[in-house]
Amino acid sequence: MRLRNKPWAKEELDKNPMFVISDPASQKGKWAELFNNNHPIHVEVGTGKGQFLTGMSELHPNINFIGIEKYDSVILTALERLKESDRSNVRLLNQDVIELTDFFAEGEIDRVYINFTDPWPKSRHEKRRLTYKNFLSLYQQVLKPDGDIHLKTDNQGLFEYSLESFSQNGLSLHEVSLDLHKSEIEGNIMTEYEERFSNKGMRIYRCEARFTL
Amino acid sequence: MRLRNKPWAKEELDKNPMFVISDPASQKGKWAELFNNNHPIHVEVGTGKGQFLTGMSELHPNINFIGIEKYDSVILTALERLKESDRSNVRLLNQDVIELTDFFAEGEIDRVYINFTDPWPKSRHEKRRLTYKNFLSLYQQVLKPDGDIHLKTDNQGLFEYSLESFSQNGLSLHEVSLDLHKSEIEGNIMTEYEERFSNKGMRIYRCEARFTL
Ligand SMILES: C[S@@+](CC[C@H](N)C(=O)[O-])C[C@H]1O[C@@H](n2cnc3c(N)ncnc32)[C@H](O)[C@@H]1O
Ligand SMILES: C[S@@+](CC[C@H](N)C(=O)[O-])C[C@H]1O[C@@H](n2cnc3c(N)ncnc32)[C@H](O)[C@@H]1O
Repeated sequence: MRLRNKPWAKEELDKNPMFVISDPASQKGKWAELFNNNHPIHVEVGTGKGQFLTGMSELHPNINFIGIEKYDSVILTALERLKESDRSNVRLLNQDVIELTDFFAEGEIDRVYINFTDPWPKSRHEKRRLTYKNFLSLYQQVLKPDGDIHLKTDNQGLFEYSLESFSQNGLSLHEVSLDLHKSEIEGNIMTEYEERFSNKGMRIYRCEARFTL
Repeated sequence: MRLRNKPWAKEELDKNPMFVISDPASQKGKWAELFNNNHPIHVEVGTGKGQFLTGMSELHPNINFIGIEKYDSVILTALERLKESDRSNVRLLNQDVIELTDFFAEGEIDRVYINFTDPWPKSRHEKRRLTYKNFLSLYQQVLKPDGDIHLKTDNQGLFEYSLESFSQNGLSLHEVSLDLHKSEIEGNIMTEYEERFSNKGMRIYRCEARFTL
């Protein structure tokens, strides 16, 4: 998904501190102050071009959304969308999810969204999947005890893997759908990938997961 | 699946005590004696006409198989199959699975197979599904601590429900397949329903589940 030849991307992100938080570690434990309210905070990991984040922030004005995307050339499109939509309840982080616990304090987050994450089908790349146990542990550290993780994907292998990984690492599954667009679901906001794959007639898989204890 | 007009079914079952155990409660804790060996015991709940059970018992002579089916007219076909195949490592119980703990002692079983179980799609019938939490608790009572449950189904709703029910009741998921016949799998024995539905081009779902603790 990396777009090439956008050397000005970083510069453009820096020009928009209202939307892009360049030093998120300095906000750790203080996101409520930044948003200036105590609304729930939902974080999307691997935000891509921000269609989901923008749509969700419009649909849920009383929730604060933060999108994390590691490629500046990709998150730039998300920034452009956000500027158009001019929402005050969204922020973007041009960061790697691996550093999640540097950005958020224990229990600071209410929900993690993982949408169409890269499947990394080879076993030797398992550790890169955003549902690998090390990532689940990061989410657990920043989520409230009753917080949850919402996953959507078109990728059969990644979904099978994630169901196993969740259940093997202390999470229970809820609202499992093996064909999202054929089930009754309200308020579904499509991501870029979701639109692309469901237009091709592919199934979209979805589930929610919560830490039990 | 109940076949009608077979009043002689019960009589026929009684005539074959080598294959049909009419008083399984009297065998509780003593199945190894009955089979005259210490091989693992695998129980199929809702055996139907016995195609899976017969095929598995031929493929795995060193495992003892027990099939439980509540309808005598249905299990009669399983008996006929078994007589032809003449396996000594299989027995049939014309019983309701709800009584499982009357038939088996704690830890007497190594595996439970649930194949194409009735989906009971209405919420008010949830308690009848063989992956409802009360049934999972029965399986746990008779399974060895490292025993497992293997589920196959064509029914999307039942599979979604079962993934949730397993993970919410202390089981971890393994070997999840959302399209069994398109994945690499060795030694799969098809059940009657599996053959019927996969011939129609329908997906077969499968998973394994193990109690964690
Ligand atoms: C396949 S795209 C999906 C984008 C969007 N969520 C959608 O559904 O359309 C996955 C995105 O996740 C980003 N990503 C993957 N791993 C990441 C990580 N560890 N940290 C931040 N972003 C990551 C990739 O750069 C890519 O833009
Ligand atoms: C849909 S059929 C599937 C048969 C077979 N397992 C197959 O895959 O072809 C389900 C079978 O489970 C049996 N069954 C359902 N609930 C049961 C219970 N509580 N105890 C025993 N048998 C049951 C039904 O009588 C029926 O024969």
